[in-house]
Amino acid sequence: MYNIALFGAGRIGQVVHSVNIDAHPETNLYSVIDPFGENAQKIADKFDCKIQTVEEAMQDPNIHGVLIASATDTHAELIELAAKAGKAIFCEKPVHLDMDRVKQCLQVVEAEKVPLFIGFNRRYDPQFKAVKERLSLGMIGKAESLLIISRDPSPPPVEYIKVSGGLFRDMTIHDLDMARFIMGEEPVSVYASGSTLVDENIGKAGDIDTAYIVMRFPSGAMATISNSRRSGYGYDQRLELHGEKGVLAAKNLHEDAVEMWTDEGCQYAKPEFFFLQRYEAAYQAEWKHFVEVLSGKSQPAVTGYDGQQALYLADKALESLKTGQEVKLD
Amino acid sequence: MYNIALFGAGRIGQVVHSVNIDAHPETNLYSVIDPFGENAQKIADKFDCKIQTVEEAMQDPNIHGVLIASATDTHAELIELAAKAGKAIFCEKPVHLDMDRVKQCLQVVEAEKVPLFIGFNRRYDPQFKAVKERLSLGMIGKAESLLIISRDPSPPPVEYIKVSGGLFRDMTIHDLDMARFIMGEEPVSVYASGSTLVDENIGKAGDIDTAYIVMRFPSGAMATISNSRRSGYGYDQRLELHGEKGVLAAKNLHEDAVEMWTDEGCQYAKPEFFFLQRYEAAYQAEWKHFVEVLSGKSQPAVTGYDGQQALYLADKALESLKTGQEVKLD
Amino acid sequence: MYNIALFGAGRIGQVVHSVNIDAHPETNLYSVIDPFGENAQKIADKFDCKIQTVEEAMQDPNIHGVLIASATDTHAELIELAAKAGKAIFCEKPVHLDMDRVKQCLQVVEAEKVPLFIGFNRRYDPQFKAVKERLSLGMIGKAESLLIISRDPSPPPVEYIKVSGGLFRDMTIHDLDMARFIMGEEPVSVYASGSTLVDENIGKAGDIDTAYIVMRFPSGAMATISNSRRSGYGYDQRLELHGEKGVLAAKNLHEDAVEMWTDEGCQYAKPEFFFLQRYEAAYQAEWKHFVEVLSGKSQPAVTGYDGQQALYLADKALESLKTGQEVKLD
Amino acid sequence: MYNIALFGAGRIGQVVHSVNIDAHPETNLYSVIDPFGENAQKIADKFDCKIQTVEEAMQDPNIHGVLIASATDTHAELIELAAKAGKAIFCEKPVHLDMDRVKQCLQVVEAEKVPLFIGFNRRYDPQFKAVKERLSLGMIGKAESLLIISRDPSPPPVEYIKVSGGLFRDMTIHDLDMARFIMGEEPVSVYASGSTLVDENIGKAGDIDTAYIVMRFPSGAMATISNSRRSGYGYDQRLELHGEKGVLAAKNLHEDAVEMWTDEGCQYAKPEFFFLQRYEAAYQAEWKHFVEVLSGKSQPAVTGYDGQQALYLADKALESLKTGQEVKLD
Repeated sequence: MYNIALFGAGRIGQVVHSVNIDAHPETNLYSVIDPFGENAQKIADKFDCKIQTVEEAMQDPNIHGVLIASATDTHAELIELAAKAGKAIFCEKPVHLDMDRVKQCLQVVEAEKVPLFIGFNRRYDPQFKAVKERLSLGMIGKAESLLIISRDPSPPPVEYIKVSGGLFRDMTIHDLDMARFIMGEEPVSVYASGSTLVDENIGKAGDIDTAYIVMRFPSGAMATISNSRRSGYGYDQRLELHGEKGVLAAKNLHEDAVEMWTDEGCQYAKPEFFFLQRYEAAYQAEWKHFVEVLSGKSQPAVTGYDGQQALYLADKALESLKTGQEVKLD
Repeated sequence: MYNIALFGAGRIGQVVHSVNIDAHPETNLYSVIDPFGENAQKIADKFDCKIQTVEEAMQDPNIHGVLIASATDTHAELIELAAKAGKAIFCEKPVHLDMDRVKQCLQVVEAEKVPLFIGFNRRYDPQFKAVKERLSLGMIGKAESLLIISRDPSPPPVEYIKVSGGLFRDMTIHDLDMARFIMGEEPVSVYASGSTLVDENIGKAGDIDTAYIVMRFPSGAMATISNSRRSGYGYDQRLELHGEKGVLAAKNLHEDAVEMWTDEGCQYAKPEFFFLQRYEAAYQAEWKHFVEVLSGKSQPAVTGYDGQQALYLADKALESLKTGQEVKLD
Repeated sequence: MYNIALFGAGRIGQVVHSVNIDAHPETNLYSVIDPFGENAQKIADKFDCKIQTVEEAMQDPNIHGVLIASATDTHAELIELAAKAGKAIFCEKPVHLDMDRVKQCLQVVEAEKVPLFIGFNRRYDPQFKAVKERLSLGMIGKAESLLIISRDPSPPPVEYIKVSGGLFRDMTIHDLDMARFIMGEEPVSVYASGSTLVDENIGKAGDIDTAYIVMRFPSGAMATISNSRRSGYGYDQRLELHGEKGVLAAKNLHEDAVEMWTDEGCQYAKPEFFFLQRYEAAYQAEWKHFVEVLSGKSQPAVTGYDGQQALYLADKALESLKTGQEVKLD
Repeated sequence: MYNIALFGAGRIGQVVHSVNIDAHPETNLYSVIDPFGENAQKIADKFDCKIQTVEEAMQDPNIHGVLIASATDTHAELIELAAKAGKAIFCEKPVHLDMDRVKQCLQVVEAEKVPLFIGFNRRYDPQFKAVKERLSLGMIGKAESLLIISRDPSPPPVEYIKVSGGLFRDMTIHDLDMARFIMGEEPVSVYASGSTLVDENIGKAGDIDTAYIVMRFPSGAMATISNSRRSGYGYDQRLELHGEKGVLAAKNLHEDAVEMWTDEGCQYAKPEFFFLQRYEAAYQAEWKHFVEVLSGKSQPAVTGYDGQQALYLADKALESLKTGQEVKLD
């Protein structure tokens, strides 16, 4: 049984991570750490775990692993502290919004030789995973063009937008990682086009809410991402991979499987509302993977480098958006 | 926290009921009772619960409720013992395969005034429940004709068939209950037609493996059930309700949401393999309901009478099959 | 080029048959015959063909074939006249509503050795034909259970109902023929259950508007038909054939292929409105077949006997409805 | 009745245009003109029309309109000749592959004041037309992002590629026109990325076979086109328009509506094979529109200017591809 310290008792900590840590037969939610005592208390009450300070947790020899789901700007420092304390680390994306800080942090992790897993949970979505597996099995031949459609149901508050790092670093970063995951090669160029169509306050905050990103890969294959901060019909999370012999298409999951046919037409349910619903299985599967990392059976399948590369692509997409030019990549 | 004694440590006890009792925040898997010590031990080890005899469990004042998932021919007696011991009772269908024995048993339950819930889990399937709810909301007007398609992926061993009570009492009984649940009235006639097409040994055992059942209701509405012991493509569990203004159709749930389009055509995944997968949510929901019964917040939504009526319809369908005639019902 | 006389200038004559005769490169719409001069004139004007009396047409040596799409009660007599005149005959179903009259008529046809094709157009629907072909290719093994769902968009006027011969002889007859076509064997029993749910005036006229029919075949296979005079959502024409290895399902054709996803759900188009839309391709294909019959390249694929058998099943379904009993067939 | 001269007796002339001219009640296929006498003869035989030279047709006062479906490099000259002869003109895209030549040609048309319709047939596809209409009705609010997926089933011969003007001018031009049609505004920038993945000989011929194009519009809306010369699964012609309130998605049309469910999964038919099947209704509808132009009831809904603009976008996409930069548009 591995004891886990959970950093961050916000929504995802309460609804996803604490539940998954508790439900896994090999992990124990040992403690929760959060500057907002009220949230920490909720988790402590529900799962009968300790409340600790950062320092207490880092020094506590009973803790085998940490799950960092705190505010984005605390990730890098907590990773470094945990690495120095010799804990295995599961950290929500991103490591940090600033690339230099990311690199610095990853050097510490490397020096301390602790495992670090970055929570790009969508790689563990059964749909997207099946696409990757069937591609690997050669079912559609070589990958040629990937289309990722990724739209949130509705935009976050502008206050969040302001500290988010912007659309590309906050939202697109998942899709950029997905493109790297599916295609299995690093892009050589990126182009981005974006607009503020959903909420003009997002534009006033210096961000965009709608975007298309196009990447090219060394093989000549391409990938396109279509993003919006608001769908109008639920969480839209699809991808289509066109290969030599055909297409693998991951469709949305819908709220139910009941259709209604009347004089007004035929109706079926909207896509699952948002990430908590759509990616429930993915969150469980990534935690299962992390437990294998804890036990030494696996190496982290999503590394600090993956986190760094997704941020790099987000930064370069932003550069393209600002210059109106395709950006060549290293 | 309610302490639950689980009678029956077979597959459904191990994979479904013990897990759901343990996962619910208000129930505790207190003990397991099974003549096969090995199975009981598995559950005791996994959930750290007692192993008891029937007598110990019935006399144990710490036990609030029993979940009966043992062999069919033990249900009635266990219900009676539990009723006399004042325990709330959750029993898998059927109460018994013999109608007189069912009635006798239900009289004991009534006399003891304990709650008895019969595990017609499909009523808690989110799809079928949504059909019922939308019908109740008037979304398709009055119900006119119901079609239930219910096919197992593959037939059980003939040894099982021999003690099963036959297709109607073993398998169709779920669909008969579903028809009563959706239509909200008791049928006035039943007609059945059946064949042995899947496995001739089923026929040699005096049973059938393929059937159509037609029921009429007082309102003039009708219902048809299409059954087979083998689908060839996974567990097929659909229903279509035609009403005044249109149709509500509950489709199958599929193994994933990935399509593949190639020169050979367009493909999507098979329906979920069998009841453990398809009705996972239903099993959890019925347990949640039973906990509300335990706490006095609800009355059993599926009663002993429902169990009796479903068996009655199964018996009458068998009579129709044997006589080749429509049978009038009380 | 074959000269065709069209008997009946009603809607189906105007919209379907005259158009198809004219469009086929090997047939010429030579004349039209109808007691309502106005309708005949419409067709004559549009296609520049003669208007004839029945007698003129039967005696006209230029006419190679007749297409009988007149009122039902004129079919048998026109068939006999055309047979005696040596014309090849295409007749809309039914030959007659009275079985004895049908047999009498078919004897004349047989004596005269002219080809007679009965217009069970649905056998030429590309969807249903594909099901039959894939069954024949062994793609799902042996047929086990067939489900036909057949609902009109809305009921005809009660005046029509009164002369229609009733639901089974007027509407179900197509589905009974479809069951014979798909299964490739003659049923050994039929059971019918029906109600008046759509329009009480249909009940007052002695007919029903909603029905389930179950047939058994010598192989043990079964077929069920679900009928309604009103769907609420367009013309519903589906079938599902369950065989040893799986299902072949012919879905509805829809008005378009555009979906709309909004906050209210996901929507797609209703089924094609009615038979003129849904079976357009079938009407063309059956005429193409009849031209092959005219040229001697084919024998009629749907014979007078097929017409007789479908009527026989309709009559027996009615007997079952009236007696509430399964009826054994010859 | 309008007499039509058909220039070009190649495949599309034989299979589409001659048939549609003949089938329309107000047009008569008067003559066919083609340097390959054999093809012209086929059409003349089938429709009993004259064979003429270009000069004869242009001077023939009986001819009201011309349909130009000849080799691409003859379009501009034939348009000019027909304009000077006062004929109404239906011309397959493109006017010419060279922009200066296009402009010169359109000046002649303008000077002669004859109607000129450019055959961007996809605007008449019932699916895409329905998307445009529902957008206009406000069903999804303002358009925000358009995704066009357009893939041919298999690449043409390299000989064709060499004279085609390249992927953008030959194939993408339809999608560029579709984007203008749906969005209802002129793009302000275009970016293109492309590869040779399907056939290396296409690359050797200086062309590409796979591409992504991104356009921005003055409103901030965007459009993306995904192209391939080979799909692997039939003709893929879809579009998805995301607006303020949701999505309108035009799906593919499939070869039939029959599904097969077996142990290997669930299967449905491939998309219609190619443009002759998929756009049959569109070709008929555009001809119907042209007949309204002939009769003076309508102005051409797709003009020479539309042809010019689509070519302009194709040229600019090519410039983007070559420079690797987004190109600003006038």
